[in-house]
Amino acid sequence: MNYTAKITISLKEGMLDPEARAIQHALANLGFSTDALSTARVFFITLQAENVEAAKAEATRMCERLLANPVIHRYEVEVGA
Amino acid sequence: MNYTAKITISLKEGMLDPEARAIQHALANLGFSTDALSTARVFFITLQAENVEAAKAEATRMCERLLANPVIHRYEVEVGA
Repeated sequence: MNYTAKITISLKEGMLDPEARAIQHALANLGFSTDALSTARVFFITLQAENVEAAKAEATRMCERLLANPVIHRYEVEVGA
Repeated sequence: MNYTAKITISLKEGMLDPEARAIQHALANLGFSTDALSTARVFFITLQAENVEAAKAEATRMCERLLANPVIHRYEVEVGA
């Protein structure tokens, strides 16, 4: 069956995020004041699997093998039908 | 009051996403077969505003001025307390 996994990858707490700082700075230059800004990357992956659990396990393996760097990233996997 | 806006930016339907294709290809090389893969960028922005509507309007202006390219991107703004 077809499942779509939503994988959200973000930096672990305490990691520096220079891109977020740059964006916050650019917003400030345009007159937008922000108290905090963080970023995340989302992947929507459609894959074949036996059931929701198998789809979630497969998506988690994709994170571990390729999508996330476990040293600096945390990831969250959600699977819908 | 403090609000956190979650801004999701993705490519409009029909836009080519070479990064997504590259990731799908890399996953295939690792033995992961996928039917589709798309990407999105998420910004979590904490800002001061009078109320939820004002916070959402401010976040939407940030999208229009800086975060999204209206020619190729669509964006979604959600605001929680």
